[in-house]
Amino acid sequence: MKKIISFFLAVCISLPLFAQYKHKVRGNIAIPDLKDFLTLKCDFHIHTVFSDGMVWPVVRVDEAYREGLDAISFGDHIEYRPHKETNGTSHNRAYEIALPEAKANGIILIRGAEITRPMPPGHFCALFLTDADELDKPDYMDVFRAAGAQNAFIIWNHPGGIWQPDVVKWWPEHTKLLELGLLHGIEVVNTDEYFPEAHAWCLEKKLTMFGSLDPHQPLFFPPGKHRPMTLVFARSRTKEAIREALNERRTAVYFEELVIGEEKYLKELFENALDIEVTKTDRQARITFTNKSDLTFHLKKTEDYDKRLVYFRDFTLVPQGKYTITVGFEGGIKGGDVNFTVENLYVQPNKGMRYTIKI
Amino acid sequence: MKKIISFFLAVCISLPLFAQYKHKVRGNIAIPDLKDFLTLKCDFHIHTVFSDGMVWPVVRVDEAYREGLDAISFGDHIEYRPHKETNGTSHNRAYEIALPEAKANGIILIRGAEITRPMPPGHFCALFLTDADELDKPDYMDVFRAAGAQNAFIIWNHPGGIWQPDVVKWWPEHTKLLELGLLHGIEVVNTDEYFPEAHAWCLEKKLTMFGSLDPHQPLFFPPGKHRPMTLVFARSRTKEAIREALNERRTAVYFEELVIGEEKYLKELFENALDIEVTKTDRQARITFTNKSDLTFHLKKTEDYDKRLVYFRDFTLVPQGKYTITVGFEGGIKGGDVNFTVENLYVQPNKGMRYTIKI
Amino acid sequence: MKKIISFFLAVCISLPLFAQYKHKVRGNIAIPDLKDFLTLKCDFHIHTVFSDGMVWPVVRVDEAYREGLDAISFGDHIEYRPHKETNGTSHNRAYEIALPEAKANGIILIRGAEITRPMPPGHFCALFLTDADELDKPDYMDVFRAAGAQNAFIIWNHPGGIWQPDVVKWWPEHTKLLELGLLHGIEVVNTDEYFPEAHAWCLEKKLTMFGSLDPHQPLFFPPGKHRPMTLVFARSRTKEAIREALNERRTAVYFEELVIGEEKYLKELFENALDIEVTKTDRQARITFTNKSDLTFHLKKTEDYDKRLVYFRDFTLVPQGKYTITVGFEGGIKGGDVNFTVENLYVQPNKGMRYTIKI
Amino acid sequence: MKKIISFFLAVCISLPLFAQYKHKVRGNIAIPDLKDFLTLKCDFHIHTVFSDGMVWPVVRVDEAYREGLDAISFGDHIEYRPHKETNGTSHNRAYEIALPEAKANGIILIRGAEITRPMPPGHFCALFLTDADELDKPDYMDVFRAAGAQNAFIIWNHPGGIWQPDVVKWWPEHTKLLELGLLHGIEVVNTDEYFPEAHAWCLEKKLTMFGSLDPHQPLFFPPGKHRPMTLVFARSRTKEAIREALNERRTAVYFEELVIGEEKYLKELFENALDIEVTKTDRQARITFTNKSDLTFHLKKTEDYDKRLVYFRDFTLVPQGKYTITVGFEGGIKGGDVNFTVENLYVQPNKGMRYTIKI
Repeated sequence: MKKIISFFLAVCISLPLFAQYKHKVRGNIAIPDLKDFLTLKCDFHIHTVFSDGMVWPVVRVDEAYREGLDAISFGDHIEYRPHKETNGTSHNRAYEIALPEAKANGIILIRGAEITRPMPPGHFCALFLTDADELDKPDYMDVFRAAGAQNAFIIWNHPGGIWQPDVVKWWPEHTKLLELGLLHGIEVVNTDEYFPEAHAWCLEKKLTMFGSLDPHQPLFFPPGKHRPMTLVFARSRTKEAIREALNERRTAVYFEELVIGEEKYLKELFENALDIEVTKTDRQARITFTNKSDLTFHLKKTEDYDKRLVYFRDFTLVPQGKYTITVGFEGGIKGGDVNFTVENLYVQPNKGMRYTIKI
Repeated sequence: MKKIISFFLAVCISLPLFAQYKHKVRGNIAIPDLKDFLTLKCDFHIHTVFSDGMVWPVVRVDEAYREGLDAISFGDHIEYRPHKETNGTSHNRAYEIALPEAKANGIILIRGAEITRPMPPGHFCALFLTDADELDKPDYMDVFRAAGAQNAFIIWNHPGGIWQPDVVKWWPEHTKLLELGLLHGIEVVNTDEYFPEAHAWCLEKKLTMFGSLDPHQPLFFPPGKHRPMTLVFARSRTKEAIREALNERRTAVYFEELVIGEEKYLKELFENALDIEVTKTDRQARITFTNKSDLTFHLKKTEDYDKRLVYFRDFTLVPQGKYTITVGFEGGIKGGDVNFTVENLYVQPNKGMRYTIKI
Repeated sequence: MKKIISFFLAVCISLPLFAQYKHKVRGNIAIPDLKDFLTLKCDFHIHTVFSDGMVWPVVRVDEAYREGLDAISFGDHIEYRPHKETNGTSHNRAYEIALPEAKANGIILIRGAEITRPMPPGHFCALFLTDADELDKPDYMDVFRAAGAQNAFIIWNHPGGIWQPDVVKWWPEHTKLLELGLLHGIEVVNTDEYFPEAHAWCLEKKLTMFGSLDPHQPLFFPPGKHRPMTLVFARSRTKEAIREALNERRTAVYFEELVIGEEKYLKELFENALDIEVTKTDRQARITFTNKSDLTFHLKKTEDYDKRLVYFRDFTLVPQGKYTITVGFEGGIKGGDVNFTVENLYVQPNKGMRYTIKI
Repeated sequence: MKKIISFFLAVCISLPLFAQYKHKVRGNIAIPDLKDFLTLKCDFHIHTVFSDGMVWPVVRVDEAYREGLDAISFGDHIEYRPHKETNGTSHNRAYEIALPEAKANGIILIRGAEITRPMPPGHFCALFLTDADELDKPDYMDVFRAAGAQNAFIIWNHPGGIWQPDVVKWWPEHTKLLELGLLHGIEVVNTDEYFPEAHAWCLEKKLTMFGSLDPHQPLFFPPGKHRPMTLVFARSRTKEAIREALNERRTAVYFEELVIGEEKYLKELFENALDIEVTKTDRQARITFTNKSDLTFHLKKTEDYDKRLVYFRDFTLVPQGKYTITVGFEGGIKGGDVNFTVENLYVQPNKGMRYTIKI
């Protein structure tokens, strides 16, 4: 009997922690892969109690598991630690605490930290660090150099929003960082804001696009909702493949119903997400779209459409839905180009992607 | 120009009806198939405006599509038609109106009607009718004979509940119908009530078990909720295969978290729904359950469990979840039988199914 | 015993219909009243099985009750009745069938119908009819005259959207109807589309603004969602008071997070929805907004703001939420005008309402 | 300019923390007050990162605010602190950190801790402590004496469930604690389990009943769901009034749809939650229940009902709903006692409350 009690004592003592493992339900966000790449869902800017976040690091892994993410990175502030009196230890602690949970759940955890300075230069997430403590230095240029020495991938966070009074502005300091090879990407989306200026900079200056939630509080998304995230088009589901894809700028940003990225990736996403079936008679065609993804697509007739093809102005392809439109033929034609703009796939700042269906 | 207008007029006039087809999203309820049978999800007792229901028949097909059902049948009352003044035409109309929508959406629609008499004998759904109008006769025995002449499959509906004052009772009239071969199944579940008496009668008298929603109002289920339904274990996804399975009593009832049926089917459902993985050391085993289905399973240690195997009293396997339990070894054993009752799989009235995991 | 059975038979026969009355839960949408007017929530454009809708008329009353509406009107098509073979009786039937349910539930039901013609002139709801059958005539001008003879209030429905190929256009036919006193309002919102052109016409031509769902299918809104609706600022909760308010153009449109209407009403709605509390020190002020309504407000700093008042660019006041902003004082000032645009209160087409808080 | 930047720097640095305060939405659970007492909603057993919980203490206050609770207490384990290496400071820290947030949000925060020992005696929450660090002692009797010296209110937690192998058992150790005045209440509900044995002990031994969630993870309840909680019937909304009510055993437990407590309180809750209106004719009465609360009530006809009153077996009064039942008169009576059991108001272990409506 004593032995049973002692076993139970051991179990009881480990149970409260254990309890968090129960009822793990893996989420899934259906976004198609590309021909040559897997589409990984990532958030590289996340806070924990080790800076000004409100949750223990393992919660962030559980959230990622539940939401169907593939990879995350913490971006706890180096320079701002309001709970320092309680847990002001090494800047590597959040990563170390969460790593076993990440491994057990198949979440790729990348060591990161947030450089947190007034603008300019602002805030930056440094990913793929080997020791975050090396970034705790007074002069910001020393910090960037230390990150560079660790071969970090450096992302300028929320270049606008509530973090800047009234402008989204590229400062000389950013030019300098870029020239030194110490700036590799920008958040085109942070929390609930899209920065078209940052979108333009990424295209112009060949920087990698990111979308981040930047959460401080615990997270719960109702069915059908998702956090802003970076889609990484990677050759495999590994940390190394993510790094290679970031280096090669193979990302897109998924934010509410928007997908933001280069046309070559967005066009393939769109085509892989849909089955498009056309049936024709002499008088009309019927186009049936079957959306196999969780993405929504808003299609709108382009202004330069062929007036002999009679179809309605706009429609929406909902996630996992089937939708049929009818295109009438006028003026003796028997087919033609049905032109649309997919309004929520941004291939340029605030501009949708043109798409043609030949019928 | 005139032609375009005329085309649009035609389109406009058909659009309101057309509009209902847009955004069709097929639902899915993940319940495993059996080795030799598909598991079809069916509701054979549904009302429309043609009796005392509140919706047009096509709505019922759309609901079935959205909820992930395979087959439905209307059970509009023959004897009770409060909207008769408006739509009191043939008892076949609801079926005829809904059939094109059912075909277009891949829903199997079975012609049916509800014989609606005071108890005894009560209410009955007759399925696989060829002409429901033949059931509109004063004497109830004539009605049953007419249904029999059409080779109908006849189900006694809600043998208790609000439909009987205080008892769930088998009357002599039911014996007579059974002896005449005019009673083939019983609703073990109707709307929100389980009838253990009906469960017992099905086992005893070799009748087929059914679970029905019996809806009158429009339906919307939030994510994770489902209507009560009959699971039909059929050789293929056809009307004929459903009939063969009903004749052979290969059904179960899925109601909230309960599955009610014969042990041979429920055991296979349970095993096909789960991956069970055991890892052992000298001191303990860890059993990991991965639930690949949308079913929930409540497991409870049996009273006669082996006291040298130390494990907790009960736990729940949530849909699509992963859960690990630890079994400690006492008294020098290195394995044994871990016994559970799966409390929400009823193989007898109000009785769960015993299950053993050998470790 | 026989008597009991006979009582139960009677009860049973009326129960299926009765069942729909059970569990009635009245909804509430918290939108403040104005000083001199009640804010009534209304949808005047709704379909039933009597045209191309999919539900029995009483369902529409139940939906209104559940959603917290005050008044509804059916707009079944006069000219388009696809279920005519089944229920092609008088155009007044839907109203007559639903009236007892409306009275029992305190919903104001207004007799209406939809005139359904190709554009021009398009579709129109005629409210406050005395006999909808009088509108069943071949020539559309005869129909409008018949509606006028019944002193109907006539609303031009969805002047754009999928109902017109590519433009939202005011035709000569509309000028004529307006001049004849046979056009009184326009749908500025229909289903899921806002028409800024219609918004402008209402302001210009002194027409009443409407927002309608125009539903054909059964309705279910998840918590926090609402149908597009017309807010009527009425002297009392009666049919007559609604008519007087429509005549006087005292309406606004509530559509997703937008409220569209004249500034005098929207400003009062905004102020009555919020408690705004200011606390000041020498260096800054804190403004706390307590939103007592279910409306959301998106506030954005105006471009011409006082640069010595330092505050963030934008923020959102969620329903029933509390939110505090900090305004820093620079340049020696101790207060000033904090200027915002309430971006989702449209007082002009696509233009928010300016609002100043003096601190 | 420099000043503006410095102001923004200050703001930026405080913003991440500040951000958590935005969009505070106060929840409300409509449970009626009693004639002489307010009904306060409380959870006295909650974990944070300071023992084996996963969230920073202020999150627990925010959850309570959002859910509509009045009072909470942390029950971090004295003896089990898996994050000790990181934050193993005083056992009072969670309370101290959360207190300003609690004050700012009007949540009553009571200093507490959980004594965590193998069974017997098991786990206990000590409330109204003055210094939790005094409870960190090897011998459990010393711990209880220290708690007693601080005039703590001591609750035996989860007397069964996964925390005990197979029994819910009262040990001699509990008798001793009771005799020493060091045991004042028991959790009748913990997490997702009701202990009828504990319910009986509370009635028998005059102990106060509690219901606790005992959360370790972050919490989010969908609309209509609530955590298990203790309803405290207090003379005012203060810490002192809660203590007085606990001393006087004026509590009930609210768990899913159950309310568990003494009949005198539950009857008053039931009557204050409902408007019951009766209208009669010679042949029948109609009873309309209007449920003004968020409680659900399941009513079932008692077995000893008057057979001359003809009414259905059971029905449910949903939150904020209206429901009408019909009672037929047989045998010449014109009224009588309509007897029900309110099945989910437990006034004895697993036993509902009898209620009579005279018509």
